[in-house]
Order: sequence, then structure tokens, then C-alpha cells
Amino acid sequence: MDIVKELLNGSRLALARTITAIENESEETAAIMKKLYPHTGHAFVIGITGPPGAGKSTMTDKLARAYRKMGKTVGIIAVDPTSPFSGGAILGDRIRMNSLTLDEGVFIRSMGTRGSLGGLSHKTADAVKAMDAFGKDVIFVETVGVGQSEVDIVKMADTTVVVLIPGMGDDIQAIKAGILEIGDIFAINKADHEGADKLQVELNMMLDLDSHMSKWRPPIQKVVSSRGDGIDELIEQITKHNEHVTETGELIKRRRERAKTEFLELLQATLGKYIKKQIVDTGKLNSYVDSMQLHETDPYTIVHETMDSLLK
Amino acid sequence: MDIVKELLNGSRLALARTITAIENESEETAAIMKKLYPHTGHAFVIGITGPPGAGKSTMTDKLARAYRKMGKTVGIIAVDPTSPFSGGAILGDRIRMNSLTLDEGVFIRSMGTRGSLGGLSHKTADAVKAMDAFGKDVIFVETVGVGQSEVDIVKMADTTVVVLIPGMGDDIQAIKAGILEIGDIFAINKADHEGADKLQVELNMMLDLDSHMSKWRPPIQKVVSSRGDGIDELIEQITKHNEHVTETGELIKRRRERAKTEFLELLQATLGKYIKKQIVDTGKLNSYVDSMQLHETDPYTIVHETMDSLLK
Repeated sequence: MDIVKELLNGSRLALARTITAIENESEETAAIMKKLYPHTGHAFVIGITGPPGAGKSTMTDKLARAYRKMGKTVGIIAVDPTSPFSGGAILGDRIRMNSLTLDEGVFIRSMGTRGSLGGLSHKTADAVKAMDAFGKDVIFVETVGVGQSEVDIVKMADTTVVVLIPGMGDDIQAIKAGILEIGDIFAINKADHEGADKLQVELNMMLDLDSHMSKWRPPIQKVVSSRGDGIDELIEQITKHNEHVTETGELIKRRRERAKTEFLELLQATLGKYIKKQIVDTGKLNSYVDSMQLHETDPYTIVHETMDSLLK
Repeated sequence: MDIVKELLNGSRLALARTITAIENESEETAAIMKKLYPHTGHAFVIGITGPPGAGKSTMTDKLARAYRKMGKTVGIIAVDPTSPFSGGAILGDRIRMNSLTLDEGVFIRSMGTRGSLGGLSHKTADAVKAMDAFGKDVIFVETVGVGQSEVDIVKMADTTVVVLIPGMGDDIQAIKAGILEIGDIFAINKADHEGADKLQVELNMMLDLDSHMSKWRPPIQKVVSSRGDGIDELIEQITKHNEHVTETGELIKRRRERAKTEFLELLQATLGKYIKKQIVDTGKLNSYVDSMQLHETDPYTIVHETMDSLLK
């Protein structure tokens, strides 16, 4: 039986192998994804992001357990753009989730860069689709850090929770400015620590200044993940946001935008591979760099010549 | 007189306008960069990276002052992939540098994303080239965070200093794994805080495990940037690394690799713009997404059709 049929029939092994194929950019990936595509679009995708040390995985853990209690099946994709590791429960923080991994209704997967130049957001999108086709009701996409690649990854979520903690130091201003736009809900984790109230006040001020949020004012929820405090309230906020985007048509709009971005990224990645074949594998790049280093030519001139030679 | 001549003649205004053109992807950027290219390749590029709150800008500030005392001219590019802001001294942490900004021998520039989809590492590379052609002896590229985009940005440096601080929390393991490869020198900032010795021991252990570093063992330098402690020693390490890569031919190899990456990124960016014109601006993308949402087709099929229609 082929891997797609097995996956659709509920084989966890087939799901794992599909995501490995996505990560490795195997030859058969496009064919698998083509067949899975008609079975996607049912899962509710929740993005969890925030700076390092904010306790995102513990929070995801607690949220996942709560959804399981409601009878929902759960997928978790932990994306770490700074880690070369991927596969099963390799990342240290995933080990905490051991009781979750024993639950057949939960599928956890870590994804790292594996040294590939970019493409992680496109691969994560495909992993979400695989879990969606597998039948997961709720899929968490959790990502360490708040750089551009992380923002791209979180853009694929239906609802995004930005996790912050008190006392993050000077750069918090910059972080907050960057993630203000992507946060549908803000969770102040470790809210029993000093500075939680101050952070809440600052966040509220920043949200007040923001003009984009005419329809939905992101709520700020205090949480102590380690004790489970505030998790039920956070889920209430997530449900409210989901209802809001569903009723206002915002969800359809978001998914349309996501489909556009995903398509363009896939096209860019496919073209990139084609170029690599034409320019890198043929040794042309080496001779280009020779001429550049001798200042006989410059990258801009060669790019234009290459475009002319490749495109119709 | 044209902007390139003005820049080469030492006009700070022309340099500022050139970097603005690079940021905005203006029509004339390629023409400007073509003319500047023969004048590049002289500056020593130092990358400064590390997690948020590590005190990177204060450290860069102190390093810049030290190089100025040695009679070197300095350029600083502060890249913030999470910030939509760019231009002059807009970022909060840059304001601390006010006495540096009064120094004619120093040129400081912040670069943010300005909402553009990627391309920041390619733009930063061009900004470095502009400062290089302008005649800066030492150029710092400082970037907040340690995500993939930041790693890409730092790859263009001749010597990369990774700044860490004691007590970063759980995710530090993941961060360290990701940046271990790019650090030529590790600076433990705020070394007067608790946990600095522990961090040094941990870092040493990780460096011992790493097999890539047969030729150069990254030194670990304790620094208290705010007081200037350890800055001279850090510069000594930077100089030693520069001598090492120069003598071993590693510098030439690195710059070759950088030229390749920059070329491929420029090609990818130019192709991206071409695709946007062909697919997005023509409205084709909208009709593609319509069919995808009706599950009449899938992104993989359309990408292959598009490739066939665009390529020779």
C-alpha cells in the first residue's frame, strides 16, 4: 500500500515518513503532497512564538493536554530555525513532553534546518498539511525566537499566540515592535515573576498605539505554564479569536493569503533548485566568482545575463 | 555629479542615499552597485550577533571607539530583522551611541525589514559594499537574535563574534547549538553577573565536542561592555583571528564562498521580482488560489505548469 493511503488510514509511521520526505526534499515529496492536498483544510492551526526562554514548549504542552481533554486530536510541530537537529523528540525541551508522547492522539515532530539554505517555512507548511490530512483537529506550530524566518513560519497559523516573559532586557522593545503585528493573543508567561504587571502595561500601551487592530484587540493573558494557571483562560481567548475570524470572514481571507504565500514560496524554492542545477552543478558559479574576484565583472551584470539565458 | 562619484569622494550624504536606495530596491540600485563594485574588497567586516538582551550594541560601541583610537575609520550596520524601522539612529539602543555619531570617522546605519519579504541579508551585503567603497576600514554588522535570517546576515563577516550572557534560560542549549558553527570568537558579556563561569565551562565543553574546528579553536573572552572591561583583549582576539584567516588562506576562501552566496541570493531576489511581475501583478495568482481553494488543483501542479511557461 502506498504511503499516502497509509497516512490517510491513520498510520503514524506513514505520517512520520511523509514529514521526513518533506524535510529531505525527496523526489517523491511533490507527488505525495499532490495526493494529500484534497484532504487538507480541516485542522485548526495555532502558532506559538516568542523569544528564547519564554517557556513556549511548556505552554504548548499544557494547551495540548487541555485540547486532548476536550476530545480533540493534536499535532505539534516544534520548529527550531537555529538547530540542525530534526526528527523525533530530539530537542531537549521536547523531552519534558514524555507523557504526551505516549498519547496516541498526539503527534509531535521537531523540525530543524538540517543545514538547508532557507525553505524551512515552506517545509513547515507542508508538514502542517500532512498532519491536517492525517486528521489532526488542532495543530500547534511552535517556534523558538522572533527573527524573520520565525515570523514567516507563524504566518501560516489561524491564531497566533505570542509568549512573552517579564524582564527580557533592552532588546524587548525591538522584539515587541516586530511581533506586535503577528500576535492575535499575547500570553505573559511566568506571570508570577516580578515585572509581569509592568510588561502588561507596556504591551497595552503598544496595542493602543497600533492602528491596524480595528476589528480585533489582542487580549493579554497572564499564565504560569508550569502550574497550569491561566491555561483554560488562554484557550477561551483562542476559541474567541477563532470564532471572531470565522464570523468576520477573516479566516477565509487569512487562509487565502497563506495559500498565496505558500504558492510563491514553493515556486521560488522550485526555481531555486532549477537554478542550482543550471549554475552551481555545472561549475558556472565557480568561473563567475573567478571573474568577480578579478573585478572583470560584477554580480549584477552576471545576474542579468543569467536571467536572459534561462527565461523565455 | 552623480551619487557614485560623490560617495567615492567621501560624501556621507551620498552614502546614506545609496543605502536608502538599496533598502528601497530602487530602479537605480543595480547601476549604482555595478559602479561601486570595483572599489570594494578592502574593508575588514566584523559580525556581532547573539540573543536579545546580550548587550551587542554596547559592545559594538566600545569596539568601534577602540578602533577609532587606532586611527581606523568605522562603519556600523545594525540589522534588526524583527523591526520595520530603518534609517538613521531610530532604534532605541542606537541612541546610546550619541558621542560616536558626532565622530565624522564613524558611519552608523540601522536596517529593518520595512515589511519586505526577505532579502534583508542581500541588502545588508550591498550596504557593506557601499561602506567598503566609501573607504571604511572596519565595518561592523550587528544583528539582534539568532534565527536563520540572522545567521545568513552574519555569514558575510570576515570574523564573527557571538555575544552571550549568563543565565539565558532553557533555550540557550538550542541557541548555542545553532551559533556554535558561526562563532569565530565567543564573548561572554556581563561577565560580572552570576553564572559567567558556568557558561564558560559549558561553552568550552561544546567547543571540545565540535570536530569542525581543527584549525581555529574559538577563544572565549569575558567582557563587561558597560565598563569597557575585556574590550582590548577582545580586539586582540579579533586581530589574531584575522591574522589566522589571512595566513591560512581561509579569508580568501571565505570571501569566495560569500561571493557565491551573494550572487545566488541576488539571482534569487531578481527572479522573485520577475515572478511577482508575471504571476502576482497579472492577477494570475488570484485565479490560482481560487482553483486551489475549490480543490480543483494543487500548488505543486501549478508550480510545474508555471515553470514550464517561464523557462526556456
